[in-house]
Amino acid sequence: MSANTENEDLRKERAKCNFNIEELTYLLDDGYENTKRRRYLENKVLSTEGLLDEIPEEYLSHKEKYENVIRKCVKLNRVLLKYDELRDKPMDEKIKASLRDTVSLAVTKDNSPMMLHAGMFLMAIEGHANEKQQEYWLKRGRNMEIIGTYAQTELGHGTFLRGLELRATYDEKTEQFILHSPTLTSYKWWPGGLAHTANYAIVMAQLYIKDKCYGMQPFMVQLRDEETHMPLPGIKIGEIGPKLGFNTVNNGFLGFENVRIPRDRMLMKNAQVLKDGTFIASPSSKLAYSTMVNVRVMIVNTVSKYLSSAATIAVRYAAVRRQSQMKPGEPEPQILDYVTQQHKLMIAIATSHAYHFTVRWLYNVSDAVKENLLKGQLDTLPELHVLACAMKVLSSSECTSLVEVCRRACGGHGYMLSSNLPQLYGVCTATMTYEGENTVLLLQVARSLVKAWDRATKGQPLSPSMSYISNKTSAAKWDSSLDGIVRNFQIVSRSKLASSVASFEQYLKSGLSYEDAWNKASVQLTAAAEAHGRAIVLSIYKQQIEKLARNMSSPLRDVLHQLLELYMVYWTLEKVGDLLLYTQISEKDVKALQRRYEDLLEILRPNAVGLVDAFDIRDEVLCSTLGSYDGRVYERLMEEAMKSPLNKEPVNETFHKYLKPFMRGKL
Amino acid sequence: MSANTENEDLRKERAKCNFNIEELTYLLDDGYENTKRRRYLENKVLSTEGLLDEIPEEYLSHKEKYENVIRKCVKLNRVLLKYDELRDKPMDEKIKASLRDTVSLAVTKDNSPMMLHAGMFLMAIEGHANEKQQEYWLKRGRNMEIIGTYAQTELGHGTFLRGLELRATYDEKTEQFILHSPTLTSYKWWPGGLAHTANYAIVMAQLYIKDKCYGMQPFMVQLRDEETHMPLPGIKIGEIGPKLGFNTVNNGFLGFENVRIPRDRMLMKNAQVLKDGTFIASPSSKLAYSTMVNVRVMIVNTVSKYLSSAATIAVRYAAVRRQSQMKPGEPEPQILDYVTQQHKLMIAIATSHAYHFTVRWLYNVSDAVKENLLKGQLDTLPELHVLACAMKVLSSSECTSLVEVCRRACGGHGYMLSSNLPQLYGVCTATMTYEGENTVLLLQVARSLVKAWDRATKGQPLSPSMSYISNKTSAAKWDSSLDGIVRNFQIVSRSKLASSVASFEQYLKSGLSYEDAWNKASVQLTAAAEAHGRAIVLSIYKQQIEKLARNMSSPLRDVLHQLLELYMVYWTLEKVGDLLLYTQISEKDVKALQRRYEDLLEILRPNAVGLVDAFDIRDEVLCSTLGSYDGRVYERLMEEAMKSPLNKEPVNETFHKYLKPFMRGKL
Repeated sequence: MSANTENEDLRKERAKCNFNIEELTYLLDDGYENTKRRRYLENKVLSTEGLLDEIPEEYLSHKEKYENVIRKCVKLNRVLLKYDELRDKPMDEKIKASLRDTVSLAVTKDNSPMMLHAGMFLMAIEGHANEKQQEYWLKRGRNMEIIGTYAQTELGHGTFLRGLELRATYDEKTEQFILHSPTLTSYKWWPGGLAHTANYAIVMAQLYIKDKCYGMQPFMVQLRDEETHMPLPGIKIGEIGPKLGFNTVNNGFLGFENVRIPRDRMLMKNAQVLKDGTFIASPSSKLAYSTMVNVRVMIVNTVSKYLSSAATIAVRYAAVRRQSQMKPGEPEPQILDYVTQQHKLMIAIATSHAYHFTVRWLYNVSDAVKENLLKGQLDTLPELHVLACAMKVLSSSECTSLVEVCRRACGGHGYMLSSNLPQLYGVCTATMTYEGENTVLLLQVARSLVKAWDRATKGQPLSPSMSYISNKTSAAKWDSSLDGIVRNFQIVSRSKLASSVASFEQYLKSGLSYEDAWNKASVQLTAAAEAHGRAIVLSIYKQQIEKLARNMSSPLRDVLHQLLELYMVYWTLEKVGDLLLYTQISEKDVKALQRRYEDLLEILRPNAVGLVDAFDIRDEVLCSTLGSYDGRVYERLMEEAMKSPLNKEPVNETFHKYLKPFMRGKL
Repeated sequence: MSANTENEDLRKERAKCNFNIEELTYLLDDGYENTKRRRYLENKVLSTEGLLDEIPEEYLSHKEKYENVIRKCVKLNRVLLKYDELRDKPMDEKIKASLRDTVSLAVTKDNSPMMLHAGMFLMAIEGHANEKQQEYWLKRGRNMEIIGTYAQTELGHGTFLRGLELRATYDEKTEQFILHSPTLTSYKWWPGGLAHTANYAIVMAQLYIKDKCYGMQPFMVQLRDEETHMPLPGIKIGEIGPKLGFNTVNNGFLGFENVRIPRDRMLMKNAQVLKDGTFIASPSSKLAYSTMVNVRVMIVNTVSKYLSSAATIAVRYAAVRRQSQMKPGEPEPQILDYVTQQHKLMIAIATSHAYHFTVRWLYNVSDAVKENLLKGQLDTLPELHVLACAMKVLSSSECTSLVEVCRRACGGHGYMLSSNLPQLYGVCTATMTYEGENTVLLLQVARSLVKAWDRATKGQPLSPSMSYISNKTSAAKWDSSLDGIVRNFQIVSRSKLASSVASFEQYLKSGLSYEDAWNKASVQLTAAAEAHGRAIVLSIYKQQIEKLARNMSSPLRDVLHQLLELYMVYWTLEKVGDLLLYTQISEKDVKALQRRYEDLLEILRPNAVGLVDAFDIRDEVLCSTLGSYDGRVYERLMEEAMKSPLNKEPVNETFHKYLKPFMRGKL
């Protein structure tokens, strides 16, 4: 094999793919125009000089990583600003965010210390600042004359917002707020870019006026001098140290010692504090969480992308890697020919699709809710909140665990950072914790479900995504059609809800308080919440594929339908315990489904490489020795190893200093 | 709270523990004398000056990490050698290995570049070298006059040994072997210490004599000059780059260009090559894999230890962390009071026990097999091989996933490297891949099971651990006693085996070749192998606790029995689908078990901290801001952050170089 040709096995895989790969790419981008635009921009941005490293990041020290990423990030952001200005038509905000994610991943193999500027800082200004404030701060922020971040989580509190301790006390004499951290645990902890990068932050603090607390409010706080970057007086700031991922993000801590800021630095679109200290509450507390909901929806998109990268790497590697002997006398097969390997990888592709199509639907729901909000109608927000919680939990945990399955499916080489799979795991698993810890969110979903159950028993109407809970028809004969599977998963969800409510009520009857009974039944309640989420993903994925199928060529329709069916059958087999408990599924049905699952793997096998090629992830974004388009796996592994500074000299100086004296018994 | 006192919550937890913590520690160490000795040695070794870092390892560059670990490792090994010499009575090999693991973890937070010297290099000499060779090499190796490693895995092949490509061709004229790497994929890849540390290696290569291949044989190869450490002529050597873990292990690659070594460098305890090129085969090919089997047994011990560390960190943190509001007006509860949290952590403690007691039993089986081998009886080795495979797979995958559950149970702070949880995950997950990739091993177990099934249908006797497969009694009424659960898990295992054999035969009948039918049924076959392993762990854990219970005080007996029951009930609920398919368990039984599970969590809650304290893991070994004995979580998080080199200066130089010009629009 010459150094520049495509691996022969991959070439053959591509030749046998029986659908049009480009057609699928356009579909995943929601249209050819989007694909074209995305490719153009990715190409423009990534061809900027000095943006990609010669020496891989992972050889650098923690401090060097930071310095290197700043050098690259200013280049990256300059290019992004340029395309924001030059674009002929306004780009869809979601596509823009997605492009930022993609190129940021390519440039940092992780995330950028400026990720919270574009993400949370500007979004928070839009969500919380009044018109006058927006005019001033948005301009400075969008042009990146200042770099901002969003500081909410503290050392002592994360998901539980009411527990946050930082105080902003209004002093009506000077018309200033006094920001003060009363304890070590009240220090802000985690915000990206906070440590050494940002000079401004939206800081969330408990507002106190005349000893009365008015809850969390957002404040625009200058952290550092714009000329010297020195922290302003009373501001204690620094970085929190290395992590499993996000090591180029410059996460920081922040404490305040009686720092005074003018009254107009409180963002007053919603709640307001007048000069004399009068507090005017926000028209609805619901407005406050609409940003949070949006961020959770975007996580569903993010993790689906991470998984598509991991699947691309693992599938291509499995086509190149040959191992063992299946049949005597024959050459070693591609590991992709092992059904156990297909079992690990096909579901990864299907799951990425499942959440890709689910989030598209969620974006639509979310847009409708936003329109309602603008009209002052708040009643659709709670349903979106529950949907976003459930989908954030399911997508993050499912995609994370499959990223890891993909990594392990690459054997030892998947353990190398040069495969980029460990880094993908690092950034993906974080989504299970941030923006609402998954177990806590499931308990919130469970609260809504229990309320819905109560309404259902009273014959009151439920929101659309929960309406199946009212459906009293009990389990009919098992039916392995996709409609049948969705229906049965709804029965499972309803039954698990009924069963956990019954346990909860039993605990109440046994004398436990409401809270203790809830706590004691909470393992069941979170399982019911998960089952609800599962029923939704299955139903939405199916609905979306069926809707889109009308405009697909028939080969593409077939393969997407096979993936959908694989996902359905996979989850039926995974949740067979629940189905046996609550539906009419029989041992015979289970065995038939197992067989169908094995057939589907076989049917999908020839399209595996085509399916991941269709994700259309550039080599610079994959950053993987194992996953590049040309399949030069072993050559790249060796090339990357040779970049190690340790390999620049045959003998490390520690030999003379330590090893030799030690072996001679002199140390 | 003053800086040096124990956290109040932890103090209360310890006060309410209702069994004797020391008693459990002695039990886990297999006797008071072992605990005393272990503590003495840990104390001696870890108090060596300069062994623990002031600046945490994770701030260093990849190269600096290596240089730092070499500095520390020579000190560590000098102390270990001293205690080897000075010890008054020979130390048990397993305790010694365990001590090495423990202190190595403390010193490197990972593993050492010399880990393969004591582990594989010396073991391989013992297993493969003849008496004369042992006399020479063991002395040099044990005194560490040379540092060795073990080189088997290649860039292109790992678990599939027959696929290894490196050749050793015998040249009878010169009575030398010529080592040569014919391809890039034949380069050795992965051995610890190989890159820049070891000067010798046991190298596995395909032996060729007069164009005939005699399979893999071990060769003692000098890699580097003892004086200068320069690689010897024809030896291509270097490091493979950064990984998810093992970054202080100095994993290397190794290629040969016609390197000649004398005939006596082939280790000839088993197979031999005479001067004239006559090959004398090993009396049994089984001897070759006895070392491999031992290493797999030791992995079960290793992962159980990793999990006990993770559980210690997560449980102590859960006792210190207070979050949210369970009841109006009350203070924030310890997160350990949330049943969802107990659900995550109690099973981690129980699982660490399960494999701790299982491996003790496995050590006994393995000792008995070794004695048989010395007597020339080889017939018990295959059963041990299957047991070691199955236990390696189950323990590594279960402990790895629970280490991660523990990490996530610590929320955002579990993502910090200063928690040490990400590093524990890194080293633990590697065990799923090395020494036989888990899926490949499960397929090997499945092969043995299918053979056993065949024997059982013919009425032939089975090995003890598989004898239940012959048991024809079909499922009786469900019984939730521990005996009943074990029996039912055996029924599940037998039924899954029967069902997968049936599928396999169906595929054969449909016209598939033996190999294709096996492949197509392989997802089911691996599931059957896993079920077999599950039945064994449940039965051995129970057997061991019941045996040991005779000599325990009654409070300890109670708590260990509760943990055992928790483990049993947990797995019953996890595998409820299988149990519903193949046993007489009913919905009512499942609900009763769920309720029992919730009761067990409540019963175990007060002893949670006591149970992890009993693992008796020193703070220097835990290396965790979240898990230290005194519970000073937040103070330590901040102290560790302040060690960051980035925090040594208020403004990083990149501000002036990049950020400021960028914000002014000049970059």
